[in-house]
Amino acid sequence: MAVVIVCDAAGRPLADRDVVVEQRAHAFGFGNIGFDFVGDDRPARLAELWFDVFNTATLPFYWSDFEPERGSPHTDRLRRAAQWFAGRGARVKGHPLVWHTLAPAWLGDLPVGEVEAAVRDRIKREVSGFAGVVDSWDAINEVVIMPVFANEPRPNGITRLARERGRIATVRLAFEEARAADPSATLLLNDFDMSTAYECLIEGVLEAGIRVDALGLQSHMHQGYWGEERTRAVLDRFARYGLPLHMTETTLVSGDLMPPEFDDLNDFQPPSWPSTPEGEARQAEEIERHYRTLLAHPSVQAVTYWGLTDEGAWLGAPAGLVRADGTPKPAYETLRGLVKGEWWLPPTTVRTDQAGRVVVHGFLGDYEVRCEGRTTPFAITGAAPAR
Amino acid sequence: MAVVIVCDAAGRPLADRDVVVEQRAHAFGFGNIGFDFVGDDRPARLAELWFDVFNTATLPFYWSDFEPERGSPHTDRLRRAAQWFAGRGARVKGHPLVWHTLAPAWLGDLPVGEVEAAVRDRIKREVSGFAGVVDSWDAINEVVIMPVFANEPRPNGITRLARERGRIATVRLAFEEARAADPSATLLLNDFDMSTAYECLIEGVLEAGIRVDALGLQSHMHQGYWGEERTRAVLDRFARYGLPLHMTETTLVSGDLMPPEFDDLNDFQPPSWPSTPEGEARQAEEIERHYRTLLAHPSVQAVTYWGLTDEGAWLGAPAGLVRADGTPKPAYETLRGLVKGEWWLPPTTVRTDQAGRVVVHGFLGDYEVRCEGRTTPFAITGAAPAR
Repeated sequence: MAVVIVCDAAGRPLADRDVVVEQRAHAFGFGNIGFDFVGDDRPARLAELWFDVFNTATLPFYWSDFEPERGSPHTDRLRRAAQWFAGRGARVKGHPLVWHTLAPAWLGDLPVGEVEAAVRDRIKREVSGFAGVVDSWDAINEVVIMPVFANEPRPNGITRLARERGRIATVRLAFEEARAADPSATLLLNDFDMSTAYECLIEGVLEAGIRVDALGLQSHMHQGYWGEERTRAVLDRFARYGLPLHMTETTLVSGDLMPPEFDDLNDFQPPSWPSTPEGEARQAEEIERHYRTLLAHPSVQAVTYWGLTDEGAWLGAPAGLVRADGTPKPAYETLRGLVKGEWWLPPTTVRTDQAGRVVVHGFLGDYEVRCEGRTTPFAITGAAPAR
Repeated sequence: MAVVIVCDAAGRPLADRDVVVEQRAHAFGFGNIGFDFVGDDRPARLAELWFDVFNTATLPFYWSDFEPERGSPHTDRLRRAAQWFAGRGARVKGHPLVWHTLAPAWLGDLPVGEVEAAVRDRIKREVSGFAGVVDSWDAINEVVIMPVFANEPRPNGITRLARERGRIATVRLAFEEARAADPSATLLLNDFDMSTAYECLIEGVLEAGIRVDALGLQSHMHQGYWGEERTRAVLDRFARYGLPLHMTETTLVSGDLMPPEFDDLNDFQPPSWPSTPEGEARQAEEIERHYRTLLAHPSVQAVTYWGLTDEGAWLGAPAGLVRADGTPKPAYETLRGLVKGEWWLPPTTVRTDQAGRVVVHGFLGDYEVRCEGRTTPFAITGAAPAR
């Protein structure tokens, strides 16, 4: 809620006058990945669908793709994508600076001391190089499993680093380098492990004095929607640390669910995994329930849905909000209806009181008020009730 | 291995002489619980069986039993039991100083600040009161689950403490008080959670500078023997921290296994859970495999079997090494055959060389050499190969 006093050009309150107020942007982070827009050929219709709902783009900085050959990073390609999003008003997030999966092959044989130096250099280079465009980073990803990750013939360099130095030392170096390279960036610890293991890691990291700006909670629900009760329990457990929560990777499939016996989602990649009418109806219902649960929790400040289109989706899963043929699924319309409908203040005529005041109720974000041809921006900020 | 020079009373080496060497004690901790000997009526036959295999007694300091009424602890009863064990040459361990389960009812309503004060007082009182008799303590038990433990209508005082202060602060206060009360005691962090959660907790605790003397790993195998591969993997993961490992709570049942769907072992307590001939044969085979695996690992310094007799065993499970009727099961004989047979040096005649030397190969521990009516103690100490 905001109380706005509408004044004329000379600063005199305009009493008893019709004015139009309108929301311009959400403060809440409604995110999606921007992977489809990294190449220079950016599909226009898909971009329209993206910007009609989302305001925060997660871009892929997977090290093995970003710098397949040591010393030749694809910085320019990523910078063009980041600037493209930023130029259209989106916030941009980089994912992830340190991760054992998709570590570059050339890291494989280096001694741990050299791995550490390479990791520090890479963090420094990306975070300072993208400062001003990328404003938040998954500083480090999936640390719980990092030192014991064993899905590969030989442990990768990052796993060796985390095993030898310890999880907390590895977290510290990631945050330390990223913080130094861009003190204004929002730095996240991100994990898929929602068990007590992640709690224990967080407590150790915070006790060690490492400043974490937000906790990233993944929620790839390929095996089924968590439901409100479990979701709230997870949020409450991680809200205990007094840090903002970002739901960094959220998916709900619009086809068959992945069977529950797969512990590692990567182990299930059927040749074909179609989107179905029943699946799409379920996905639409669940996305609404899930986003309502998340938005109602005072600690949640951002939700990133993991994928806009089924085309090229992770695991080939029908987890997108848009079908492979480019048409929006019901879940897209549902989410749009919330983000730009129920949770959005469209142009609305209200009348000022005797003191020139109007009271605006709306979600946190940027607004404007128009009166007699003049447009003035204002914001609703502050405590949770103002949402 | 030790090289012993046998001398006469004047200190002159006795060359080319028959001497008898004999082991007196294991350095390795072969433990069992001493719960059956806490009352003043100590079953003599059971005691014989206990001392014939074990050298380390775990005594119950469960707070709700120890001090059911605030200010009236059963210190004397426990002291008599501890002294009884110590007087018979056993080392004595106290279990546990801090634990959410079996927290006293009177803690229930106290504000967290008063819970903390009561916990500190209790640790100080027990550890200083038993110094010189109890030489090791589970300083804190099951911290991974402690703040989220929810198997009760209202959270107990210890859970509230751990939730409000955090796991590491709670670990710190336990170790801090216990260390101050008896700087010579061996203090353990103990848990049943063998997942990455316990790793993360340990890393946080060590990063926070808390000195832990040994890591306690429970292994109640009511749902089946882990097998060598899993056991070694667990040991290797926790050996990474460079601390001695104590297998603090080891059980193998000699009857039907508990069905795998029970996550909390406490949830399965059938009206009758008999020991069976097939179960006893399996238990004997598995105890041998398990102890061989544990003793072969360089980090393991103690193994405590959880229960001597089926009479009054935890969960009513046939997990003892002695049947309820007092007769030893095959597993008892197997374990005795290892601890006092294969891994033990009985009185053995050897001949000194020209310099009066004999070379003694044996497990770490106390030995003696006898020659011409004189008995001299010596020890095999040091690195793992000497075992």
